[in-house]
Amino acid sequence: VRLASAAAGIRYPNRQDLVLLELDPASHCAAVFTRNAFCAAPVTLARAHLATHSPRFLLVNSGNANAGTGTRGLDDARACCARLAELAGCEAEQVLPFSTGVIGEFLPVERFRAALPEALARLRADGWRPAAEAIRTTDTVAKGTTRRFDVRGIPVTITGIAKGAGMIRPDMATMLAFLATDAPVEQPVLQGLLAAAVAETFNRITVDGDTSTNDACVLIATGAAALPPIDRSDAEVYRMLAEQVHAVCLDLAQAIVRDGEGATKFITVRVSGAASEAECQTVAYTIAHSPLVKTACFASDPNWGRILAAVGRSGAAGLDIGQVAIHLDQTCVVRGGARSPDYREEQGRAVMGQEEFTIHVDLGRGTNATTLWTTDLSFDYVRINAEYRT
Amino acid sequence: VRLASAAAGIRYPNRQDLVLLELDPASHCAAVFTRNAFCAAPVTLARAHLATHSPRFLLVNSGNANAGTGTRGLDDARACCARLAELAGCEAEQVLPFSTGVIGEFLPVERFRAALPEALARLRADGWRPAAEAIRTTDTVAKGTTRRFDVRGIPVTITGIAKGAGMIRPDMATMLAFLATDAPVEQPVLQGLLAAAVAETFNRITVDGDTSTNDACVLIATGAAALPPIDRSDAEVYRMLAEQVHAVCLDLAQAIVRDGEGATKFITVRVSGAASEAECQTVAYTIAHSPLVKTACFASDPNWGRILAAVGRSGAAGLDIGQVAIHLDQTCVVRGGARSPDYREEQGRAVMGQEEFTIHVDLGRGTNATTLWTTDLSFDYVRINAEYRT
Repeated sequence: VRLASAAAGIRYPNRQDLVLLELDPASHCAAVFTRNAFCAAPVTLARAHLATHSPRFLLVNSGNANAGTGTRGLDDARACCARLAELAGCEAEQVLPFSTGVIGEFLPVERFRAALPEALARLRADGWRPAAEAIRTTDTVAKGTTRRFDVRGIPVTITGIAKGAGMIRPDMATMLAFLATDAPVEQPVLQGLLAAAVAETFNRITVDGDTSTNDACVLIATGAAALPPIDRSDAEVYRMLAEQVHAVCLDLAQAIVRDGEGATKFITVRVSGAASEAECQTVAYTIAHSPLVKTACFASDPNWGRILAAVGRSGAAGLDIGQVAIHLDQTCVVRGGARSPDYREEQGRAVMGQEEFTIHVDLGRGTNATTLWTTDLSFDYVRINAEYRT
Repeated sequence: VRLASAAAGIRYPNRQDLVLLELDPASHCAAVFTRNAFCAAPVTLARAHLATHSPRFLLVNSGNANAGTGTRGLDDARACCARLAELAGCEAEQVLPFSTGVIGEFLPVERFRAALPEALARLRADGWRPAAEAIRTTDTVAKGTTRRFDVRGIPVTITGIAKGAGMIRPDMATMLAFLATDAPVEQPVLQGLLAAAVAETFNRITVDGDTSTNDACVLIATGAAALPPIDRSDAEVYRMLAEQVHAVCLDLAQAIVRDGEGATKFITVRVSGAASEAECQTVAYTIAHSPLVKTACFASDPNWGRILAAVGRSGAAGLDIGQVAIHLDQTCVVRGGARSPDYREEQGRAVMGQEEFTIHVDLGRGTNATTLWTTDLSFDYVRINAEYRT
């Protein structure tokens, strides 16, 4: 995998806003996309290209989402892919386009295309960090991570980058994330690995409950490591790889939450004792999206009544609040649906004054559990989104 | 109906925080309550009392919600009802308790009970305004309305008061609302009138999507007007009364939105062309709860991409974004899922710069429509909820 970034002047002059990622011809590629019915032109096109061709390039831009741009948006994305294919000597369908930035404006296709020769000339294997920088929008930090591990004495690497800070409630992945490994993995196995990891990482984070139109997460396996193809037939190696993919996705997903727009707190919401997996998620997301819970977190106010009220309105069928327990980190705040007798408010305030803490709700009626990660709701979230046009 | 208010020192000294409402023995009473599974002690008790007795008093306090208080909370509410019944010479089950304010703290029962004799002594027919003042919490204005109309030459009056500004996403009514009419209406008919009106008024407003634990709306019919009992057998009179009840509920519901915590805009969200009523509501609430749409409204930013993204993630099955149209007031912004060709951004900015405007989304695939009312998301919402303990 080789990467390059360039300044195409898509939204601002002299800002790195274009990323090119070249795949070795022997690579396999798995991807998941937003489930938003209002998906962007590049998402539509990337899905179509992936269905029929083996990709050679990922072509990414920030500054403009090319969403809500109708058929012209599709034509624009096609024109950029075609120009890259022409320069690089591959088919246009072997280019997957990804865009992030403002919705509802047309891509500056000429400037975009004009930056491609320079980007091609700059491709290099150690280009991950500038690429992570170039895909940022409201992100305050670039997000990347690498894991190295041994499979039967052979070193294997997984590297990933991601962007995302607002409009974060992935119904797939969060905004854009690109991962690559030198492990040899065939496409269907790779897709399974990615889907399983995303379900428990990128799909378990939320900043504001707003799902982007452009979400995409791609996992590339180059096969450069001198190993036989990895699949479920070798359960131990498969599990090891799955754990590492999961770990890279979790690192990136949590990095997105930590960089959540206006976030001052990193909050883990854990729901256990639920009657079903769906119930876990309903309750956990209701807590994580409650503006009242989020502002209480911002204020370090252990306002457990708001948490209990969110649980109560979540719609979990036949829920008996009298069985509910709430812990803030290790402190039991609510037991049997009311204030725990030996709980003192200073304890809750101390937990919520930290930059990171866990809200754990046990529903007391089953064995299912889930965990997700979210932020508080601060003045800065309002400022950022009142000033910035997504 | 006679009312009184008093200062019981429930949360703050010298603040009117207790309201007593006396019903004539011939009155009928209809009520709807929160559907939050975590409902407060007074809600549980009021439901139980209503099921077996005809109420003589509503006993309301602000400053403390008596929610999340377990069995002691129930005992406390019972003790207050019992004391009033003793003083007034009725049964404790003829008193309906209502509370609003901070969650998770115990009622100061002794101070509460000590204020009851004075409240009883002060009961008067024109006590609506001080009562509306006394039930406020974060409300910045008292909310009340009166409608007078003639039925076959006989004047009939409906008066109502309400409180509510935050934790507003009624799954019934919004916080507390008390309505009374001198029209003669039997209980089952009255309950039907109230339920129908609430469904299209209090149940169509949202500030932050958080459903209160203490919501209740009560409609009293004293029967003092010299008319035969009103029911569906006289369709014309029934319809007239239904319209007036609806109008009073709508006035109060919209007053709650206008006074929404931190609100700088009053926004009507209309969804039409939907395949079902449920689809209308899903799409409309997704728009109304989107932090990105709400901050764009605060900024007077006609960021239609955020509206379209909210429609796209709402979960309406098989939605074709290519059929979606969006109007801001009369201005067509999106047609066929993309920017309307003759739309200019100044038009959208002018609409959203107003204190009141309508976001109208047509899904282009059915005949169902719904309307709801909401607010923007401002710095002040965060400030109020970071500082105030619900």
